[in-house]
Amino acid sequence: MSDLKRAHNFNPGPGVLPLEVLQEAQSELLNFKGTGMSVMEISHRSKEFEGVIQTAEADLRELLGIPANYKVMFLQGGATLQFAMLPMNLRPAGASADYIVTGSWSKTAVKEAKKLGAVHIAANTEADGFNCIPANLDLDPKAAYLHFTSNETIHGVEYFTEPTPPAGVPLVCDTSSDFISRPIDVSKYALLYAGAQKNAGPSGVTIVIIRDDMLARVPENLPVMLDYKTLAESGSLHNTPPSFAIYMVGLVFKWAKKQGGLAAVEKNNRVKADLVYKAIDESGGFYRGHAKPEARSLMNIPFRLPSEELEDTFAKEAKKENLIGLKGHRSVGGMRASVYNAMDLAGTQELVRFMRDFQKKNG
Amino acid sequence: MSDLKRAHNFNPGPGVLPLEVLQEAQSELLNFKGTGMSVMEISHRSKEFEGVIQTAEADLRELLGIPANYKVMFLQGGATLQFAMLPMNLRPAGASADYIVTGSWSKTAVKEAKKLGAVHIAANTEADGFNCIPANLDLDPKAAYLHFTSNETIHGVEYFTEPTPPAGVPLVCDTSSDFISRPIDVSKYALLYAGAQKNAGPSGVTIVIIRDDMLARVPENLPVMLDYKTLAESGSLHNTPPSFAIYMVGLVFKWAKKQGGLAAVEKNNRVKADLVYKAIDESGGFYRGHAKPEARSLMNIPFRLPSEELEDTFAKEAKKENLIGLKGHRSVGGMRASVYNAMDLAGTQELVRFMRDFQKKNG
Repeated sequence: MSDLKRAHNFNPGPGVLPLEVLQEAQSELLNFKGTGMSVMEISHRSKEFEGVIQTAEADLRELLGIPANYKVMFLQGGATLQFAMLPMNLRPAGASADYIVTGSWSKTAVKEAKKLGAVHIAANTEADGFNCIPANLDLDPKAAYLHFTSNETIHGVEYFTEPTPPAGVPLVCDTSSDFISRPIDVSKYALLYAGAQKNAGPSGVTIVIIRDDMLARVPENLPVMLDYKTLAESGSLHNTPPSFAIYMVGLVFKWAKKQGGLAAVEKNNRVKADLVYKAIDESGGFYRGHAKPEARSLMNIPFRLPSEELEDTFAKEAKKENLIGLKGHRSVGGMRASVYNAMDLAGTQELVRFMRDFQKKNG
Repeated sequence: MSDLKRAHNFNPGPGVLPLEVLQEAQSELLNFKGTGMSVMEISHRSKEFEGVIQTAEADLRELLGIPANYKVMFLQGGATLQFAMLPMNLRPAGASADYIVTGSWSKTAVKEAKKLGAVHIAANTEADGFNCIPANLDLDPKAAYLHFTSNETIHGVEYFTEPTPPAGVPLVCDTSSDFISRPIDVSKYALLYAGAQKNAGPSGVTIVIIRDDMLARVPENLPVMLDYKTLAESGSLHNTPPSFAIYMVGLVFKWAKKQGGLAAVEKNNRVKADLVYKAIDESGGFYRGHAKPEARSLMNIPFRLPSEELEDTFAKEAKKENLIGLKGHRSVGGMRASVYNAMDLAGTQELVRFMRDFQKKNG
């Protein structure tokens, strides 16, 4: 392994994982805790796997300060399946749910929710090119819930203060791309969900945190794999869970604790994001950030160059210098630097150095 | 790694994986194909991951002889989610589907299908304790499809010749626990599905093979993650797939090809299963197999001992001798030896040696 040259990995997800997490997984891949089996080969009903999933949950509870009246689930299907499960479970027949649309992902959440019932749009920033957090909300006081996307991975806009729903309306959040990137007050939420493959681990597992009172809303007779009540009450073990992905998120939670918890993680994330935004702001317009300054994501930093040709050259030359995954989403073009928890300061500094050099040569 | 003592792993799933597959995954876990990234860290839209998923599909097509007019999907949620997706997609509103019930898993499939519409039971062997394949079927010539479970993991009964539906009725099979354990004629099926965590890889990925004409049945406006049409047409890449699990099944498919393909795999499986059944049959009633001889599974071999006390002792002493995972399912008790593709002859011989020794001491 001495010849390992790690890429500086700015992929939007699946993305960079902590090197020491990968090393630990590698070292015990053939023999998990002396069992003579890989963690992939042990029964999900064994005491060894119970240790894996219970420790992962306990560490996540500690990291996020999850109150005791919340359940934690490790599910499958990504945030995209949650877009459907959420209204199936928490929007009673005939009721409407409020959605705030701030980018591609919240727009897709609305599309899925509309297939199954009524949606009311509390705000939509599409006319502004999804570059901001809406100042005003048109809220339905009888909404089944208020849904928002705390960080839009494609447009790079992030909520730093959660919206306030009317009294009695549960707050629901897709936190896929800023999950465990900074402390939040879980008690303000009725439900949080996140695909793991940004900050928390590999793809293939989705974390759902649900307040107990929401489970009373789950209708009878849902397919069991779409039923929050069954899934929560079985401790994510109704059927065979995605064991290896759960094992990996457990290692990542432990790593985040070792960094000093989410306050320390946020501090690092702010230093990294500030470096990149500073390089954009000091470029005299050569680099143009997408999001308005007050809505700038700490996780995903989309930016444009003066021409598409220069953007292509930027991506190619960056790759030659081991800076990977910088092309923007195919739906919007341009560049995007994703600086998740596991992106280190050195990688970020290397990106900023490259941005300045590239501008000197091409500006 | 020189001190690695591999367990003889008879777990019913997640279960034993080929050692060389685990070793390959381990060796490149930090650096996939020279990318400087783990396969868990690369984008699912990258050419490297395209290589992973396309090679996995091509190898599976070769192994099973999948005709060109079938799509292969790598999904999430296990067979249990397929229990619901299948009727959602392929049973038109108002129509009924035929189900053959030969054990716990087909019984659960019925339960889920009934939540969403009409089911007709073509046969049910529960009165026989789920120890056989039904001789006669009561088939509905207008059924939306005929569903059967080719191998019942808990009861250890296996279909070696698929049932014949009435003309025009599509045949659908849950093949989770005998998937790629022997050749089958895919052209007889409209749809096959299998959770990977028996013969094909780790948990967290479900393989669905669907004949193209079935996609015309998929109703409009299904949630996108439950919609076979969208999932098939996107090449399993509508959203982020379970990348690492797909990578692992790809390695297992390659390994199965190296064994000589499924004819050779079946030959090994028959040798192993015969050894265990012989030990049961020659025990003079000390060991009692569950399934009738003609329905005996090559994959899962449930058996009883003269008392529950002896069964407990058997499991404990087996474990001391590094024979793992031999307790029967909690719903039926007794013992169960799962001898999947990756269980080697040496492990099986060791089990048989232990069974004979145990009987000598306790018989």
